[in-house]
Amino acid sequence: MREFRRDLITGRWIIISTERAKRPFAFMKYPREIDDVNTCPFCWGNERFTPPEIVAYRPQNTPKNTPGWQVRTIPNKYPALRVEGEVIKSADGIYDKITGIGAHEVIIETPYHDKDLYQLELNNVIDILRMYKERIEDLKRDIRFEYILIFKNCGKYAGATLSHPHSQLIALPMIPIIIKQELDGAKKYYEFKERCIYCDIINEELKTNTRVVTENEDFIALCPYASRFPFEVWVLPKRHDPMYEDIQYNELKNLASIMKIINKKLNLALENPPYNYLLHTSPLKHNNLHYYHWHIEIIPKLSGIGGFEWGTGFYINPVEPEEATKFLREL
Amino acid sequence: MREFRRDLITGRWIIISTERAKRPFAFMKYPREIDDVNTCPFCWGNERFTPPEIVAYRPQNTPKNTPGWQVRTIPNKYPALRVEGEVIKSADGIYDKITGIGAHEVIIETPYHDKDLYQLELNNVIDILRMYKERIEDLKRDIRFEYILIFKNCGKYAGATLSHPHSQLIALPMIPIIIKQELDGAKKYYEFKERCIYCDIINEELKTNTRVVTENEDFIALCPYASRFPFEVWVLPKRHDPMYEDIQYNELKNLASIMKIINKKLNLALENPPYNYLLHTSPLKHNNLHYYHWHIEIIPKLSGIGGFEWGTGFYINPVEPEEATKFLREL
Repeated sequence: MREFRRDLITGRWIIISTERAKRPFAFMKYPREIDDVNTCPFCWGNERFTPPEIVAYRPQNTPKNTPGWQVRTIPNKYPALRVEGEVIKSADGIYDKITGIGAHEVIIETPYHDKDLYQLELNNVIDILRMYKERIEDLKRDIRFEYILIFKNCGKYAGATLSHPHSQLIALPMIPIIIKQELDGAKKYYEFKERCIYCDIINEELKTNTRVVTENEDFIALCPYASRFPFEVWVLPKRHDPMYEDIQYNELKNLASIMKIINKKLNLALENPPYNYLLHTSPLKHNNLHYYHWHIEIIPKLSGIGGFEWGTGFYINPVEPEEATKFLREL
Repeated sequence: MREFRRDLITGRWIIISTERAKRPFAFMKYPREIDDVNTCPFCWGNERFTPPEIVAYRPQNTPKNTPGWQVRTIPNKYPALRVEGEVIKSADGIYDKITGIGAHEVIIETPYHDKDLYQLELNNVIDILRMYKERIEDLKRDIRFEYILIFKNCGKYAGATLSHPHSQLIALPMIPIIIKQELDGAKKYYEFKERCIYCDIINEELKTNTRVVTENEDFIALCPYASRFPFEVWVLPKRHDPMYEDIQYNELKNLASIMKIINKKLNLALENPPYNYLLHTSPLKHNNLHYYHWHIEIIPKLSGIGGFEWGTGFYINPVEPEEATKFLREL
């Protein structure tokens, strides 16, 4: 199969070209290394090697920055941005710049040094997802910020510098362009159809049922029609909501459960690939963007895929999402 | 230094965050492997292992598909797209697709198996650049195509499957989104300022002279203000022109010369990194987009850089372009 497919939301065209595809399990792999546990700053007992914690879920009788926590949020020791200071916008010759103000936090997901999401207790995963929600709610009060990016790099080849499971949060004084493109696309669609584009996608996928990997009461996991990468998976809430932080506590459980399932399936299908996932949610200062719908995009990083795409923004995907879905379903 | 910088053309914000920067020469490196010369289908004498050539620069007395050529263009043996057939646009449920029609060619740049651009004779490089021009002129006549992407992947980690120096060409029935963003940005700027945005950038850079790596009569090579990646370099013609294929034969010589210099400097600075470059030129059916200005973007691929960016479209660059410029100038 060789065809162009258009991402309904952003208008981005991709090529599905399976003629040279290998069987899913035959991709060249990047290894996912595990660091030495003895020197890991994210392990219990090594809390002094990180900046003091911002918040942690821990038994009431344990003091801050000591073992016992389940999920622990700290400032990034090597932050890309400074949290103190004013957001100053200025010209730099003909260009534009803004002072490098923002929050850059690390969410240590578990005390376990080398367990991936699917190996954690459900409650541990619920706590990770609850931490995302509560960090957004906290940082939202800082009027300097326009957007909060929450993402995970797992594996060196996906950008992680430490192997102990952790997510990152970056609060920004502007909206990232990729989110802006989604917002613009979703808005245009809403103006034309008077329906949420993501709700339409969910309905279409449930109807055709060729790209739905799994679902539960509250969430659906699918390989998107115009997948940029092999085995790209999106997780969307069935209940329309623009903002992740609106998630209800009972929904957190179903999100944790579907994230664990997808994580397990991807690890089985692709032999523990490095991966990224990214939470796409509303900008902070737009409290009810009725046309937007939060979701999580998961991208396994396979060797030899993506070199070309860096420079071009044009993606060639050697695996049909329908094939990837079938393979993931059967696992 | 920690600051946000905005790409003047696309509006894309990036973070320059040098606090955790290593010295340029201290980046982790991806190796640039060399394949076995005996089995290389791109070497002289192995022409039978490729599809029959489309065009080659060769002495008049040598037959097609035999040794003697200097630059040789062939169809990609494993094309992402088919060249035969009709461009049919159709709905696929709520989505959009187009038949996978397009040209996918390989431009073998030199008979030398393992020489990078800077090691080639100037005339060889001129011939490569002339081949780009002539392939565009030829394929432009095919009314099915809207855009021609010419790019080079060098090194496995930059997406190349063979190490013998080659570029690729993909002719598409649509405009890639990254080019569309540039066109939109350049158009808006022109409407506001009545000047070409790229010409303004060239003038600004020549004036401030902190990001100009090198220049000659016809071309300028600079590290862009909002560089996404360390040591990203753009090469622009000083003479305003939307279309690469308009390049004059005397300009080809100066382009070849500046490309060789940049290639040498990047190889020295980063110890032969894998890299991509991409020709950004006008869409085929817009014959004089006065607000656009063709150029080449060169991106060295450094380990550990880019994991995050895949999913987010948000770039954190640990090297100030001004620093990269200084370093490259001094080499």
